[in-house]
Amino acid sequence: MVVLKVTLLEGRSLEKKRELVKRLTEVASRILYEPHEEVRVILYEVCKDQWAAGGVLLSDKEGA
Amino acid sequence: MVVLKVTLLEGRSLEKKRELVKRLTEVASRILYEPHEEVRVILYEVCKDQWAAGGVLLSDKEGA
Amino acid sequence: MVVLKVTLLEGRSLEKKRELVKRLTEVASRILYEPHEEVRVILYEVCKDQWAAGGVLLSDKEGA
Amino acid sequence: MVVLKVTLLEGRSLEKKRELVKRLTEVASRILYEPHEEVRVILYEVCKDQWAAGGVLLSDKEGA
Amino acid sequence: MVVLKVTLLEGRSLEKKRELVKRLTEVASRILYEPHEEVRVILYEVCKDQWAAGGVLLSDKEGA
Amino acid sequence: MVVLKVTLLEGRSLEKKRELVKRLTEVASRILYEPHEEVRVILYEVCKDQWAAGGVLLSDKEGA
Repeated sequence: MVVLKVTLLEGRSLEKKRELVKRLTEVASRILYEPHEEVRVILYEVCKDQWAAGGVLLSDKEGA
Repeated sequence: MVVLKVTLLEGRSLEKKRELVKRLTEVASRILYEPHEEVRVILYEVCKDQWAAGGVLLSDKEGA
Repeated sequence: MVVLKVTLLEGRSLEKKRELVKRLTEVASRILYEPHEEVRVILYEVCKDQWAAGGVLLSDKEGA
Repeated sequence: MVVLKVTLLEGRSLEKKRELVKRLTEVASRILYEPHEEVRVILYEVCKDQWAAGGVLLSDKEGA
Repeated sequence: MVVLKVTLLEGRSLEKKRELVKRLTEVASRILYEPHEEVRVILYEVCKDQWAAGGVLLSDKEGA
Repeated sequence: MVVLKVTLLEGRSLEKKRELVKRLTEVASRILYEPHEEVRVILYEVCKDQWAAGGVLLSDKEGA
Protein backbone atom coordinates (compact mmCIF):
# COMPACT_ATOMS: atom_id res chain seq x y z
CA MET A 1 0.00 0.00 0.00
CA VAL A 2 1.06 3.54 -0.75
CA VAL A 3 -0.72 6.69 0.38
CA LEU A 4 -0.07 9.95 -1.45
CA LYS A 5 -1.32 13.09 0.17
CA VAL A 6 -1.22 16.05 -2.15
CA THR A 7 -1.50 19.51 -0.64
CA LEU A 8 -2.45 22.00 -3.33
CA LEU A 9 -4.30 25.25 -3.82
CA GLU A 10 -8.05 24.84 -4.21
CA GLY A 11 -9.75 25.70 -7.44
CA ARG A 12 -8.51 23.05 -9.87
CA SER A 13 -11.14 21.59 -12.17
CA LEU A 14 -12.51 18.11 -11.72
CA GLU A 15 -10.78 17.18 -14.97
CA LYS A 16 -7.41 18.26 -13.57
CA LYS A 17 -7.92 16.32 -10.36
CA ARG A 18 -8.98 13.27 -12.33
CA GLU A 19 -5.85 13.35 -14.44
CA LEU A 20 -3.61 14.11 -11.47
CA VAL A 21 -4.68 11.12 -9.39
CA LYS A 22 -4.53 8.86 -12.45
CA ARG A 23 -0.97 9.81 -13.37
CA LEU A 24 0.37 9.88 -9.82
CA THR A 25 -1.06 6.42 -9.27
CA GLU A 26 0.55 5.09 -12.43
CA VAL A 27 3.94 6.45 -11.42
CA ALA A 28 3.80 5.14 -7.86
CA SER A 29 2.48 1.77 -8.97
CA ARG A 30 5.12 1.29 -11.65
CA ILE A 31 8.14 2.35 -9.63
CA LEU A 32 7.17 0.76 -6.31
CA TYR A 33 5.70 -2.44 -7.79
CA GLU A 34 2.39 -1.87 -6.03
CA PRO A 35 -0.92 -2.90 -7.60
CA HIS A 36 -2.93 0.10 -8.83
CA GLU A 37 -5.67 -0.57 -6.30
CA GLU A 38 -3.18 -0.34 -3.44
CA VAL A 39 -2.25 3.24 -4.32
CA ARG A 40 -4.51 5.74 -2.56
CA VAL A 41 -4.41 9.45 -3.25
CA ILE A 42 -5.89 12.13 -1.02
CA LEU A 43 -6.11 15.70 -2.29
CA TYR A 44 -5.92 18.25 0.47
CA GLU A 45 -7.04 21.53 -1.05
CA VAL A 46 -6.24 24.73 0.81
CA CYS A 47 -7.32 28.32 0.32
CA LYS A 48 -4.92 31.16 -0.32
CA ASP A 49 -5.40 32.46 3.22
CA GLN A 50 -4.34 29.11 4.64
CA TRP A 51 -0.93 28.92 3.02
CA ALA A 52 2.15 31.06 3.46
CA ALA A 53 5.64 31.23 2.01
CA GLY A 54 8.24 33.54 3.46
CA GLY A 55 5.83 34.50 6.22
CA VAL A 56 3.24 35.97 3.86
CA LEU A 57 -0.17 34.45 3.10
CA LEU A 58 -0.68 33.65 -0.59
CA SER A 59 -3.84 35.80 -0.48
CA ASP A 60 -1.69 38.79 0.47
CA LYS A 61 0.86 38.10 -2.25
CA GLU A 62 -1.86 38.30 -4.86
CA GLY A 63 -2.45 41.92 -4.11
CA ALA A 64 1.19 42.78 -4.52
CA MET B 1 -0.53 12.24 24.69
CA VAL B 2 -1.91 10.48 21.67
CA VAL B 3 -3.22 12.15 18.52
CA LEU B 4 -5.54 10.23 16.19
CA LYS B 5 -6.18 11.71 12.82
CA VAL B 6 -9.03 10.02 11.03
CA THR B 7 -9.37 10.60 7.30
CA LEU B 8 -12.88 9.68 6.18
CA LEU B 9 -15.48 10.55 3.60
CA GLU B 10 -17.59 13.56 4.51
CA GLY B 11 -21.27 13.19 5.17
CA ARG B 12 -21.42 11.23 8.44
CA SER B 13 -23.98 12.44 10.93
CA LEU B 14 -23.02 14.28 14.08
CA GLU B 15 -24.19 11.25 16.03
CA LYS B 16 -21.78 9.01 14.14
CA LYS B 17 -18.88 11.36 14.70
CA ARG B 18 -19.75 11.64 18.36
CA GLU B 19 -19.73 7.89 18.81
CA LEU B 20 -16.59 7.44 16.72
CA VAL B 21 -14.42 9.83 18.74
CA LYS B 22 -15.79 8.40 21.99
CA ARG B 23 -14.97 4.81 21.12
CA LEU B 24 -11.61 5.50 19.51
CA THR B 25 -10.60 7.45 22.61
CA GLU B 26 -11.63 4.62 24.91
CA VAL B 27 -9.61 2.11 22.91
CA ALA B 28 -6.47 4.26 22.73
CA SER B 29 -6.71 5.23 26.37
CA ARG B 30 -7.17 1.67 27.59
CA ILE B 31 -4.46 0.03 25.52
CA LEU B 32 -1.83 2.78 25.75
CA TYR B 33 -2.47 3.68 29.40
CA GLU B 34 -3.10 7.31 28.53
CA PRO B 35 -5.64 9.43 30.44
CA HIS B 36 -8.79 10.09 28.40
CA GLU B 37 -8.07 13.81 28.29
CA GLU B 38 -4.68 13.16 26.69
CA VAL B 39 -6.25 11.45 23.67
CA ARG B 40 -7.07 13.95 20.94
CA VAL B 41 -8.99 13.01 17.80
CA ILE B 42 -9.13 15.07 14.62
CA LEU B 43 -11.58 14.13 11.90
CA TYR B 44 -10.38 15.05 8.46
CA GLU B 45 -13.41 14.79 6.17
CA VAL B 46 -12.80 14.67 2.44
CA CYS B 47 -15.14 14.85 -0.55
CA LYS B 48 -15.46 12.12 -3.12
CA ASP B 49 -13.54 14.19 -5.64
CA GLN B 50 -10.60 14.48 -3.26
CA TRP B 51 -9.97 10.78 -2.80
CA ALA B 52 -8.83 8.15 -5.25
CA ALA B 53 -8.16 4.41 -5.18
CA GLY B 54 -6.60 2.66 -8.13
CA GLY B 55 -6.14 6.01 -9.84
CA VAL B 56 -9.88 6.77 -10.00
CA LEU B 57 -11.66 9.46 -7.96
CA LEU B 58 -14.40 8.07 -5.73
CA SER B 59 -16.81 10.49 -7.39
CA ASP B 60 -16.14 8.79 -10.72
CA LYS B 61 -16.56 5.31 -9.30
CA GLU B 62 -20.07 6.21 -8.17
CA GLY B 63 -21.22 6.49 -11.75
CA ALA B 64 -19.99 3.05 -12.63
CA MET C 1 13.13 23.92 3.83
CA VAL C 2 10.78 23.73 6.76
CA VAL C 3 7.08 22.98 6.63
CA LEU C 4 4.85 23.97 9.52
CA LYS C 5 1.38 22.57 9.57
CA VAL C 6 -0.83 24.26 12.12
CA THR C 7 -4.06 22.53 13.10
CA LEU C 8 -6.40 25.03 14.72
CA LEU C 9 -10.05 25.77 15.21
CA GLU C 10 -11.63 27.64 12.31
CA GLY C 11 -12.93 31.15 12.77
CA ARG C 12 -9.78 33.21 13.30
CA SER C 13 -9.71 36.52 11.46
CA LEU C 14 -7.52 37.09 8.44
CA GLU C 15 -5.49 39.49 10.54
CA LYS C 16 -4.79 36.78 13.11
CA LYS C 17 -3.74 34.30 10.44
CA ARG C 18 -1.52 36.90 8.81
CA GLU C 19 0.27 37.62 12.07
CA LEU C 20 0.50 33.94 12.98
CA VAL C 21 2.25 32.84 9.80
CA LYS C 22 4.55 35.87 9.95
CA ARG C 23 5.70 35.22 13.49
CA LEU C 24 5.99 31.45 13.15
CA THR C 25 8.11 31.94 10.05
CA GLU C 26 10.39 34.40 11.82
CA VAL C 27 10.92 31.98 14.70
CA ALA C 28 11.59 28.95 12.49
CA SER C 29 13.86 30.93 10.19
CA ARG C 30 15.92 32.41 12.99
CA ILE C 31 16.41 29.25 15.03
CA LEU C 32 16.89 26.81 12.16
CA TYR C 33 18.96 29.14 9.97
CA GLU C 34 16.58 28.73 7.06
CA PRO C 35 15.86 31.58 4.63
CA HIS C 36 12.41 33.09 5.16
CA GLU C 37 11.26 31.94 1.74
CA GLU C 38 12.10 28.33 2.62
CA VAL C 39 9.65 28.30 5.53
CA ARG C 40 6.19 27.26 4.42
CA VAL C 41 3.17 27.36 6.71
CA ILE C 42 -0.10 25.55 6.09
CA LEU C 43 -3.10 26.33 8.28
CA TYR C 44 -5.43 23.41 8.67
CA GLU C 45 -8.64 24.80 10.11
CA VAL C 46 -11.11 22.36 11.64
CA CYS C 47 -14.67 22.77 12.87
CA LYS C 48 -15.74 22.05 16.42
CA ASP C 49 -17.45 18.85 15.34
CA GLN C 50 -14.20 17.57 13.86
CA TRP C 51 -12.10 17.77 16.96
CA ALA C 52 -12.32 15.88 20.24
CA ALA C 53 -10.47 15.85 23.53
CA GLY C 54 -11.20 13.21 26.14
CA GLY C 55 -13.56 11.49 23.73
CA VAL C 56 -15.93 14.46 23.47
CA LEU C 57 -16.36 16.66 20.40
CA LEU C 58 -15.59 20.33 21.05
CA SER C 59 -19.05 21.18 19.71
CA ASP C 60 -20.57 19.09 22.51
CA LYS C 61 -18.37 20.68 25.16
CA GLU C 62 -19.69 24.09 24.19
CA GLY C 63 -23.19 23.15 25.21
CA ALA C 64 -22.06 22.02 28.63
CA MET D 1 -11.86 3.67 3.04
CA VAL D 2 -10.73 5.10 6.34
CA VAL D 3 -7.17 6.02 7.27
CA LEU D 4 -6.23 6.36 10.94
CA LYS D 5 -2.93 7.93 11.71
CA VAL D 6 -1.93 7.49 15.31
CA THR D 7 0.83 9.71 16.67
CA LEU D 8 2.21 8.19 19.85
CA LEU D 9 5.39 7.96 21.89
CA GLU D 10 7.76 5.26 20.69
CA GLY D 11 8.55 2.30 22.87
CA ARG D 12 5.29 0.35 22.96
CA SER D 13 5.64 -3.41 22.60
CA LEU D 14 4.68 -5.24 19.45
CA GLU D 15 1.85 -6.82 21.43
CA LYS D 16 0.46 -3.41 22.32
CA LYS D 17 0.65 -2.20 18.74
CA ARG D 18 -1.01 -5.38 17.54
CA GLU D 19 -3.91 -4.94 19.92
CA LEU D 20 -4.20 -1.23 19.22
CA VAL D 21 -4.58 -1.54 15.45
CA LYS D 22 -6.98 -4.45 15.89
CA ARG D 23 -9.31 -2.58 18.23
CA LEU D 24 -9.17 0.74 16.42
CA THR D 25 -10.03 -1.05 13.19
CA GLU D 26 -12.99 -2.81 14.79
CA VAL D 27 -14.35 0.45 16.14
CA ALA D 28 -13.95 2.38 12.88
CA SER D 29 -15.35 -0.48 10.83
CA ARG D 30 -18.39 -0.95 13.03
CA ILE D 31 -19.37 2.69 13.40
CA LEU D 32 -18.60 3.84 9.86
CA TYR D 33 -19.90 0.69 8.11
CA GLU D 34 -16.59 0.15 6.36
CA PRO D 35 -15.24 -3.34 5.63
CA HIS D 36 -12.33 -4.28 7.90
CA GLU D 37 -9.94 -4.40 4.97
CA GLU D 38 -10.78 -0.80 4.07
CA VAL D 39 -9.56 0.50 7.41
CA ARG D 40 -5.87 1.31 7.33
CA VAL D 41 -3.89 2.29 10.43
CA ILE D 42 -0.50 3.97 10.40
CA LEU D 43 1.42 4.31 13.65
CA TYR D 44 3.66 7.33 13.73
CA GLU D 45 6.02 6.83 16.66
CA VAL D 46 7.93 9.83 17.94
CA CYS D 47 10.76 10.18 20.45
CA LYS D 48 10.50 12.27 23.58
CA ASP D 49 12.71 14.95 22.06
CA GLN D 50 10.35 15.32 19.13
CA TRP D 51 7.24 16.17 21.10
CA ALA D 52 6.39 19.15 23.25
CA ALA D 53 3.48 20.29 25.38
CA GLY D 54 3.40 23.76 26.88
CA GLY D 55 6.59 24.60 25.03
CA VAL D 56 8.67 21.95 26.80
CA LEU D 57 10.02 18.78 25.16
CA LEU D 58 8.80 15.59 26.82
CA SER D 59 12.44 14.57 27.27
CA ASP D 60 12.97 17.66 29.43
CA LYS D 61 9.83 17.05 31.47
CA GLU D 62 11.16 13.63 32.46
CA GLY D 63 13.98 15.17 34.40
CA ALA D 64 11.65 17.36 36.37
CA MET E 1 3.50 25.27 -4.45
CA VAL E 2 2.53 21.64 -4.14
CA VAL E 3 3.53 19.28 -1.35
CA LEU E 4 3.35 15.54 -1.92
CA LYS E 5 3.69 13.34 1.11
CA VAL E 6 4.22 9.73 0.20
CA THR E 7 3.67 7.13 2.90
CA LEU E 8 5.35 3.89 1.91
CA LEU E 9 7.01 0.83 3.39
CA GLU E 10 10.65 1.36 4.26
CA GLY E 11 13.35 -0.55 2.45
CA ARG E 12 13.27 0.90 -1.07
CA SER E 13 16.66 1.56 -2.63
CA LEU E 14 18.03 5.05 -3.05
CA GLU E 15 17.67 4.55 -6.80
CA LYS E 16 13.96 3.83 -6.42
CA LYS E 17 13.41 6.88 -4.25
CA ARG E 18 15.34 9.03 -6.68
CA GLU E 19 13.19 7.92 -9.59
CA LEU E 20 9.98 8.17 -7.59
CA VAL E 21 10.43 11.81 -6.56
CA LYS E 22 11.57 12.72 -10.09
CA ARG E 23 8.55 11.24 -11.79
CA LEU E 24 5.99 12.40 -9.23
CA THR E 25 7.37 15.91 -9.55
CA GLU E 26 7.15 15.83 -13.33
CA VAL E 27 3.51 14.69 -13.18
CA ALA E 28 2.45 17.27 -10.59
CA SER E 29 4.32 20.06 -12.34
CA ARG E 30 2.89 19.29 -15.75
CA ILE E 31 -0.73 18.85 -14.73
CA LEU E 32 -0.92 21.63 -12.16
CA TYR E 33 1.22 24.14 -14.09
CA GLU E 34 3.60 24.54 -11.17
CA PRO E 35 7.32 25.15 -11.68
CA HIS E 36 9.42 22.07 -10.87
CA GLU E 37 11.10 23.83 -7.98
CA GLU E 38 7.73 24.51 -6.36
CA VAL E 39 6.91 20.81 -6.09
CA ARG E 40 8.19 19.34 -2.85
CA VAL E 41 8.07 15.63 -2.06
CA ILE E 42 8.44 14.12 1.39
CA LEU E 43 8.84 10.36 1.73
CA TYR E 44 7.46 9.03 4.97
CA GLU E 45 8.83 5.52 5.34
CA VAL E 46 7.16 3.21 7.84
CA CYS E 47 8.10 -0.21 9.17
CA LYS E 48 5.89 -3.26 8.82
CA ASP E 49 4.95 -3.09 12.50
CA GLN E 50 3.68 0.47 12.06
CA TRP E 51 1.14 -0.23 9.36
CA ALA E 52 -2.04 -2.28 9.43
CA ALA E 53 -4.76 -3.23 6.99
CA GLY E 54 -7.87 -5.03 8.14
CA GLY E 55 -6.72 -4.68 11.72
CA VAL E 56 -3.56 -6.76 11.21
CA LEU E 57 -0.02 -5.37 11.23
CA LEU E 58 1.86 -5.99 7.99
CA SER E 59 4.60 -7.68 10.03
CA ASP E 60 2.04 -10.25 11.19
CA LYS E 61 0.71 -10.83 7.69
CA GLU E 62 4.17 -11.79 6.54
CA GLY E 63 4.19 -14.82 8.79
CA ALA E 64 0.90 -16.08 7.43
CA MET F 1 -5.90 23.31 21.37
CA VAL F 2 -3.38 23.89 18.64
CA VAL F 3 -1.15 21.26 17.06
CA LEU F 4 1.98 22.34 15.21
CA LYS F 5 3.70 19.74 13.12
CA VAL F 6 7.12 20.83 12.01
CA THR F 7 8.76 18.92 9.17
CA LEU F 8 12.49 19.61 9.14
CA LEU F 9 15.78 18.03 8.23
CA GLU F 10 17.18 15.75 10.90
CA GLY F 11 20.39 16.59 12.69
CA ARG F 12 19.49 19.65 14.76
CA SER F 13 20.86 19.66 18.29
CA LEU F 14 18.69 19.07 21.31
CA GLU F 15 19.30 22.70 22.26
CA LYS F 16 17.92 23.89 18.93
CA LYS F 17 14.83 21.70 19.24
CA ARG F 18 14.28 22.90 22.78
CA GLU F 19 14.39 26.54 21.74
CA LEU F 20 12.27 25.92 18.64
CA VAL F 21 9.34 24.33 20.47
CA LYS F 22 9.53 26.98 23.21
CA ARG F 23 9.36 29.90 20.81
CA LEU F 24 6.77 28.40 18.48
CA THR F 25 4.56 27.69 21.47
CA GLU F 26 4.90 31.24 22.75
CA VAL F 27 3.93 32.67 19.36
CA ALA F 28 0.93 30.38 18.86
CA SER F 29 -0.25 30.89 22.42
CA ARG F 30 -0.01 34.66 22.29
CA ILE F 31 -1.64 35.18 18.92
CA LEU F 32 -4.36 32.54 19.20
CA TYR F 33 -5.16 33.14 22.88
CA GLU F 34 -4.54 29.50 23.74
CA PRO F 35 -3.04 28.45 27.08
CA HIS F 36 0.58 27.30 26.73
CA GLU F 37 -0.33 23.78 27.77
CA GLU F 38 -2.84 23.53 24.94
CA VAL F 39 -0.17 24.08 22.30
CA ARG F 40 1.42 20.81 21.21
CA VAL F 41 4.40 20.63 18.89
CA ILE F 42 5.52 17.54 17.01
CA LEU F 43 8.87 17.57 15.22
CA TYR F 44 8.94 15.31 12.21
CA GLU F 45 12.59 14.92 11.26
CA VAL F 46 13.40 13.58 7.81
CA CYS F 47 16.65 12.48 6.20
CA LYS F 48 18.08 14.06 3.08
CA ASP F 49 17.08 11.04 1.02
CA GLN F 50 13.45 11.46 2.07
CA TRP F 51 12.97 14.99 0.85
CA ALA F 52 13.00 16.43 -2.65
CA ALA F 53 12.62 19.84 -4.24
CA GLY F 54 12.37 20.22 -7.97
CA GLY F 55 12.33 16.45 -8.35
CA VAL F 56 15.79 15.97 -6.83
CA LEU F 57 16.51 14.39 -3.44
CA LEU F 58 18.34 16.72 -1.04
CA SER F 59 21.01 14.03 -0.69
CA ASP F 60 21.72 14.29 -4.41
CA LYS F 61 21.85 18.08 -4.33
CA GLU F 62 24.62 17.93 -1.77
CA GLY F 63 26.93 16.31 -4.27
CA ALA F 64 26.34 19.00 -6.83
